[in-house]
Amino acid sequence: MQKIEQIANQVFADGFSVRQAARNGSLVRPTSGMAPGFQQGNIVILSAPDADEFLRFCVLNPKTAPILDVSEPGDFTLPRLGREIDIRTDVPRYRIFRDGELIDSVVDLRAIWSGDLVTFVLGCSFSFEDALVRASIPVRHMDNGTNVPMYVTNLDTVPSGKFGGPTVVSMRPFVPKDAIMATILSSQLPQAHGAPVHFGDPAAIGIKDIAAPEFGDAPEIRDGEIPVFWACGVTPQLAIMRAKPRIAITHEPGHMLVTDLRSDGGRQF
Amino acid sequence: MQKIEQIANQVFADGFSVRQAARNGSLVRPTSGMAPGFQQGNIVILSAPDADEFLRFCVLNPKTAPILDVSEPGDFTLPRLGREIDIRTDVPRYRIFRDGELIDSVVDLRAIWSGDLVTFVLGCSFSFEDALVRASIPVRHMDNGTNVPMYVTNLDTVPSGKFGGPTVVSMRPFVPKDAIMATILSSQLPQAHGAPVHFGDPAAIGIKDIAAPEFGDAPEIRDGEIPVFWACGVTPQLAIMRAKPRIAITHEPGHMLVTDLRSDGGRQF
Repeated sequence: MQKIEQIANQVFADGFSVRQAARNGSLVRPTSGMAPGFQQGNIVILSAPDADEFLRFCVLNPKTAPILDVSEPGDFTLPRLGREIDIRTDVPRYRIFRDGELIDSVVDLRAIWSGDLVTFVLGCSFSFEDALVRASIPVRHMDNGTNVPMYVTNLDTVPSGKFGGPTVVSMRPFVPKDAIMATILSSQLPQAHGAPVHFGDPAAIGIKDIAAPEFGDAPEIRDGEIPVFWACGVTPQLAIMRAKPRIAITHEPGHMLVTDLRSDGGRQF
Repeated sequence: MQKIEQIANQVFADGFSVRQAARNGSLVRPTSGMAPGFQQGNIVILSAPDADEFLRFCVLNPKTAPILDVSEPGDFTLPRLGREIDIRTDVPRYRIFRDGELIDSVVDLRAIWSGDLVTFVLGCSFSFEDALVRASIPVRHMDNGTNVPMYVTNLDTVPSGKFGGPTVVSMRPFVPKDAIMATILSSQLPQAHGAPVHFGDPAAIGIKDIAAPEFGDAPEIRDGEIPVFWACGVTPQLAIMRAKPRIAITHEPGHMLVTDLRSDGGRQF
């Protein structure tokens, strides 16, 4: 199975081939590991004026919601992120929320697209984890084949209109020298959540039980390792659920938009 | 005169004292050199929906328009930037534009404030130049007591609604080793325009005559020095003039909002 996946992933050497496969329906699965070296993005689609409030939420909380791009209303292309992108078809699977409730999971948005929809593409932690791996820094949850542990903290986001709520963080344990290098490398990737928001005592940011994350899998923290916490893309997702906008469309978790931007290309703009 | 100014500036040791003096009317002059070590910000005030389009313009052009903060409509406080800020009174002088035309210059906005006005505070190059001076890198226009030269380039901004147009850059000449350090230091200050957008051949970015800047004073470039170009805060000002929003309020050039943020404090959020 591992081998079949490796072979399959070799076919998807770049963002364009992943997007074409998503578009023609031959790819309906998570994009993790595909198109190595290219940035993947979280998708949020809202109608104005929700989109205006959410844009301000992202600007005021850039570590949780780093903006890779934001479209004009109704425009389904994203030329700054990649060749011939059509956001209505190029993500493997979408979730549709109405008034905060999940009402559908679809592979194509063309039937429901409308001229007031605004697309946000937000950076994710894949490119930061790539940077750690390239620097030979072991990333525990990757080595263990588990999901990164994620926690709801007592750090409030800066609210914007109906969007607000707590900051969600992901945690990776490191020995001190690796924690220092991980801090430096991540600080250079603001489009992938940037530098950590905390390290050490989980209680200091309101995490009661480090062994029981709200999302993802329980962590393995070894002797001599310190937990390091980064702002997490679940934060804006949670803000959207709480805000209950009339309509919200997101990617199905793990089913990302794969862009033509290089992971190590620094800032896009 | 120099001495009197130095004494006067000593009174304004922090942002709060500058803002209080602007508020009570005793300070109606440029803020350059005041409250050393604290970030100063450009002010743009627009009414929705112009504010929504302009927010997206800033997000898509972060080197020209680095957002320090953006308010909720009607809110004249900016608690994230400083203690007791009232944006209607705390800038020494304001310009009021109607349909793109300068119609007034005032010291108080309380009479014309309304519930749909959104305040943007955008970073400026003062904190970057502070960092160069602290690193013992000579900055020519400061040493010469002239304004930094600024040029309109052929680099288009990413448009958003009615906001768009060319990127304006400022230029500082350096010997190569200083240019390298200036690049590193400025890249660490994204809230002050970040890393350069170009160095070397002015014609490559559409500058026809380096001796004749569109704004500021003519440069002095010595043998062995390379011109280094940074995105400039005049870019969003030009975009606003071109867009001709119904109402736009800005600071009078040089008369900035002085914040409580430390210049070397890295990113605000």
